[in-house]
Amino acid sequence: MEIDTARLIGSLNELGQIGLTERGGLMRVAFSQADLEGRAWVRERMHAVMDVRVDPAGNTIGHYAGREPGLLPIALGSHTDTVPDGGKYDGALGVLAALACVEALARDGVRLRHPVEVINFNSEEAAVAGGTFGSRAMAGQFDPTILQQTTADGRLIADIVRDAGVDPEKIVTAARPEGSLAAYLELHPEQGGRLEAARSPIGVVEAIVAIRRFVVTFHGYANHAGTTPMEQRRDALVVAAPFILAVRSTAIVHEVVGTVGTLRIEPGASNVIPGRVDLSLEIRGQDDGVLDAVELELRTLAQGSGGDFTPISAKPAVASDPWLVAQLEAASESLGLPYQRMSSGAGHDAMCMAGITREAMLFVPSRGGVSHSPDEFTSDEQCINGARVLLAALLRIDERLDADEG
Amino acid sequence: MEIDTARLIGSLNELGQIGLTERGGLMRVAFSQADLEGRAWVRERMHAVMDVRVDPAGNTIGHYAGREPGLLPIALGSHTDTVPDGGKYDGALGVLAALACVEALARDGVRLRHPVEVINFNSEEAAVAGGTFGSRAMAGQFDPTILQQTTADGRLIADIVRDAGVDPEKIVTAARPEGSLAAYLELHPEQGGRLEAARSPIGVVEAIVAIRRFVVTFHGYANHAGTTPMEQRRDALVVAAPFILAVRSTAIVHEVVGTVGTLRIEPGASNVIPGRVDLSLEIRGQDDGVLDAVELELRTLAQGSGGDFTPISAKPAVASDPWLVAQLEAASESLGLPYQRMSSGAGHDAMCMAGITREAMLFVPSRGGVSHSPDEFTSDEQCINGARVLLAALLRIDERLDADEG
Repeated sequence: MEIDTARLIGSLNELGQIGLTERGGLMRVAFSQADLEGRAWVRERMHAVMDVRVDPAGNTIGHYAGREPGLLPIALGSHTDTVPDGGKYDGALGVLAALACVEALARDGVRLRHPVEVINFNSEEAAVAGGTFGSRAMAGQFDPTILQQTTADGRLIADIVRDAGVDPEKIVTAARPEGSLAAYLELHPEQGGRLEAARSPIGVVEAIVAIRRFVVTFHGYANHAGTTPMEQRRDALVVAAPFILAVRSTAIVHEVVGTVGTLRIEPGASNVIPGRVDLSLEIRGQDDGVLDAVELELRTLAQGSGGDFTPISAKPAVASDPWLVAQLEAASESLGLPYQRMSSGAGHDAMCMAGITREAMLFVPSRGGVSHSPDEFTSDEQCINGARVLLAALLRIDERLDADEG
Repeated sequence: MEIDTARLIGSLNELGQIGLTERGGLMRVAFSQADLEGRAWVRERMHAVMDVRVDPAGNTIGHYAGREPGLLPIALGSHTDTVPDGGKYDGALGVLAALACVEALARDGVRLRHPVEVINFNSEEAAVAGGTFGSRAMAGQFDPTILQQTTADGRLIADIVRDAGVDPEKIVTAARPEGSLAAYLELHPEQGGRLEAARSPIGVVEAIVAIRRFVVTFHGYANHAGTTPMEQRRDALVVAAPFILAVRSTAIVHEVVGTVGTLRIEPGASNVIPGRVDLSLEIRGQDDGVLDAVELELRTLAQGSGGDFTPISAKPAVASDPWLVAQLEAASESLGLPYQRMSSGAGHDAMCMAGITREAMLFVPSRGGVSHSPDEFTSDEQCINGARVLLAALLRIDERLDADEG
């Protein structure tokens, strides 16, 4: 049984036209007209080979029946919304590869032991409703307070959601109970440059990293930039600069990532010495103990120069299911495709699905590590590799799931 | 002849009530109701001892006649507008000390050889119309394009000016020709901490520093902060941080001041690597050659890390008149007050007046170097010292101006 590779690449290109801007970026931001159009296009494709429903959170769920009664579905999925000015692979590849797997089964008239689901999750990107909107809802983790927040242009999230056909009151009813799926698999571009650097066509994700966010505040004294001699200054930005460099060096030493992505100076005038600097710090890593050490080092450094170090959020790492990881590795091997184990630095729908089922992810390379950009690129061959491993893993898991595992 | 010191301190306190906020800051921003009220209060005080007129730029000019016909006026002055949330000394001290000099003459019925002018310049602070609005106009340096600019809250400068009683069309007619004054002297708080550190009650300003402003842009690549390994990043903020530190060290080495007062990150999100950083660089120094060297070093450093180094503005240094400087020193000595020569790191009305007459400035200490703040403070004794030196210098200059100089 083989993926129809020409059809897969054609689908990627066809879906990649929906929301395409003149500048070459994709604007299929969740709940937008283009996003709804993209989701409708996917539904129609699904409809040709499987039963399709849209759940109360706006997730599209295709169901391809199995041959053994009573077995739980194996779900494959991802999302088709994009960041503003994104690319055509992020999310879409996972959905279309999942669809291609079912199309291959249908073409050959094959029913697996388990039902197969293809899920196009709603609003995975953080652009509108905080990210992983649909998969949180499906996993029973939806937080309704997000509905009362407003976007940068002043629209209430509840109104945006409602205008896109999702009843805000009913989102929580999209929750599926723990143990209602046999497994969840997701293929996704890596969004980093590790696979490319290692010339490895397949990444098998053993964990989605923990994410901790902080606001770090440095204090100075806002005084006249012309009349205050250098030796009498307390310049908050001059205190912050070594910290910015230390974030980088500390992350390198501990093999995690650390980023200062925002920085605000008060009062913020060219002729006034910075009196206060607030910066965002984000650290991500696979090992909570290592992150504890990084956090302690940076906290000590910030506080040592009189700064405040304030935690904003902390998401723990999510380990993939070891048996699923082993099946993905075996599937890669069976196709002669080298793979490497790795962690995912980004959050994914799979992270939420881990709350209700065993899950694992496959990565394919991102050229230059570029992501969330019109320049995002994964070659046709690399996309096909990913879809082929996904199909091989699906067949393998379907066959062995209950036998191996009981 | 003596300054009425109790009256001077009383005047400072009384004017310091106009525009006082509940939090203790002064809000006499140029052209505001409080500013107009403060200026009216000063006009009334002037009116008791001299002829008063308001010129087409809104400058208040008091004229105290001299006894020798045909001699040009010696002018003393400063401003009574404040920055938002400023203090009661900046500007006001210079105007009230000038007034106190004429009050001392009037009380004793003394007429000097030269007429004496007391000038309360309009809108010296940069809050509304770019700074030194009135003195620029008087010196024939007014740039009418400022009138077409709008403030942060969207008001046209021309409208603000008109609402405060100044006809925008007639501002240029406030210009006085070069050589129409015999000299200009200004007393002002230092706004820095040098005098306090040196325990010196009087500063004699030998130059107002040159000011050069630049925008420095560093380039990176905005990528996903979770999925991009540290070794594959190009983080514009990490490139900017050593530059920020180099501004400080370079300024110290060359004995100038250098400040990064604003910094903007693009795209500016906690989970995106900074793709671009634009920061403001301001350097000030007394010697254009030294500033050239500082500029070259910082330009080389910025460009060496792929940055753009763009000049925004450059104001040359303004040297005080050496003979006036000598008279200010002699006046300090005659009162037994130690003084030190220094440069002014800030611009002043005197800087503009240098275009039409010889000028020099006197500084008195600012506690802790604090300026443009409700915490601005100069003690009564220090204010009185300044006013006494100003009066002694006025008498000395009046006596010697044409004799010494021809």
